[in-house]
Amino acid sequence: MYTRVSYDGGFDEVAIEEPLEIRVDGEPLAVTMRTPGHDEELALGFLYGEGLIDGPRQAGLTDDLAANTIEVSGPLTRQPGTRRFYTTSSCGVCGKGALEEVAVNSGPLPEGPRIPRELAAQLPSRLEQPSFEHTGGLHATGLFDAEGRLLWTREDVGRHNAMDKVVGRALLDGLIPLGERILCVSGRLSFELVQKAAVAGAPILVGVGAPSSLAIALADDRGLTLCGFARGKRVNVYTRPERIIGAA
Amino acid sequence: MYTRVSYDGGFDEVAIEEPLEIRVDGEPLAVTMRTPGHDEELALGFLYGEGLIDGPRQAGLTDDLAANTIEVSGPLTRQPGTRRFYTTSSCGVCGKGALEEVAVNSGPLPEGPRIPRELAAQLPSRLEQPSFEHTGGLHATGLFDAEGRLLWTREDVGRHNAMDKVVGRALLDGLIPLGERILCVSGRLSFELVQKAAVAGAPILVGVGAPSSLAIALADDRGLTLCGFARGKRVNVYTRPERIIGAA
Repeated sequence: MYTRVSYDGGFDEVAIEEPLEIRVDGEPLAVTMRTPGHDEELALGFLYGEGLIDGPRQAGLTDDLAANTIEVSGPLTRQPGTRRFYTTSSCGVCGKGALEEVAVNSGPLPEGPRIPRELAAQLPSRLEQPSFEHTGGLHATGLFDAEGRLLWTREDVGRHNAMDKVVGRALLDGLIPLGERILCVSGRLSFELVQKAAVAGAPILVGVGAPSSLAIALADDRGLTLCGFARGKRVNVYTRPERIIGAA
Repeated sequence: MYTRVSYDGGFDEVAIEEPLEIRVDGEPLAVTMRTPGHDEELALGFLYGEGLIDGPRQAGLTDDLAANTIEVSGPLTRQPGTRRFYTTSSCGVCGKGALEEVAVNSGPLPEGPRIPRELAAQLPSRLEQPSFEHTGGLHATGLFDAEGRLLWTREDVGRHNAMDKVVGRALLDGLIPLGERILCVSGRLSFELVQKAAVAGAPILVGVGAPSSLAIALADDRGLTLCGFARGKRVNVYTRPERIIGAA
């Protein structure tokens, strides 16, 4: 997930970034700049988050283009939009046909767990980020159970890729909707991360960084508990505080 | 650029994130999740970075969709690709038709300025980030002259949007290619930020954060001087150190 490069002070370790083309039944559908590894999870998590598949599919890297192409078997649940470009702070609503389609195809979230405020604050410190420690250049997403035990972490140069990989793993393991589980991200909380969490059925999303206005609005609309600035003993609960014991 | 929200501890200020649809001659082309403000610059910088325009165009917000649509007059320099989705850590190569198109349509970079290592290290501290100070939730890009004087900074929830806004401003002011000027970003250095800098003709790009492997590879290929981890008195020079006085 990282490589050694030279710079004017000697050698440094940097996160690997490479394009991955996602194809469905041979048709190119998406390109993402990602950190190689867990590519099947990434492709499945991405397709699920976009509402294009409703369960796991066969997927595998091809030998084309230095193995930066992954083939996923169809069929798709719906036809993708025709927008040519999508560009965002972290993408995630890619390819939608119009602004009004920036809405989430997610079912209602469960009541979910109730967790102590102290636990929510600590979750980021429980993420395992071996490649970040080497490079300083990777985002991470982790999935936790209701007792705060880490199920797994994924790292990537793209924050939305790390989230897609976690959701894709859960899809392969039959854990979607996430229900009683909690998602935690190492960075800021954007609209698209809330969208992906909601589509995966996670009632609580915790982040180390700041939420955006639209992330808060979407979390509120979907009934998701959004926690930001989770550091040490502190955490801000922006929406649905009833799932956080000790929040007002 | 930010708004006041309530959370369980009282009130907080958060960065505004809203979608912007970019239309060219009435045709929807792209949607980006951005922080409102400088939308004309954003649209022009994005189109320039994608090689779709080669100079400034008329552009203006419409009253549609709560002013989240901007109309740009054509014609385009080339036809955009037909890829349906593009998703990346920070986008920027959106909509390209295939992996092999992840290449830059940039002319050769000029010899450019030579700046002291200490100056490169200090540039991030010279960025003006008023909204970040309130929210902790915004990226910034700044344009500097060869003496290290800040020309302007733009902030956005999306790092690539902040860069697009700076390039769009330069385009409107007739400062493209950037030539003797220096770009500086508040975060990590991804492939797409190097791509946008190279297309805008900037010979030096400085960042506070870590570069990715592909960012370094592209900078080296394009002859761009890439500086990362610029903090206080320290900076790592990854490529083309001849423009940094005191670099090995």
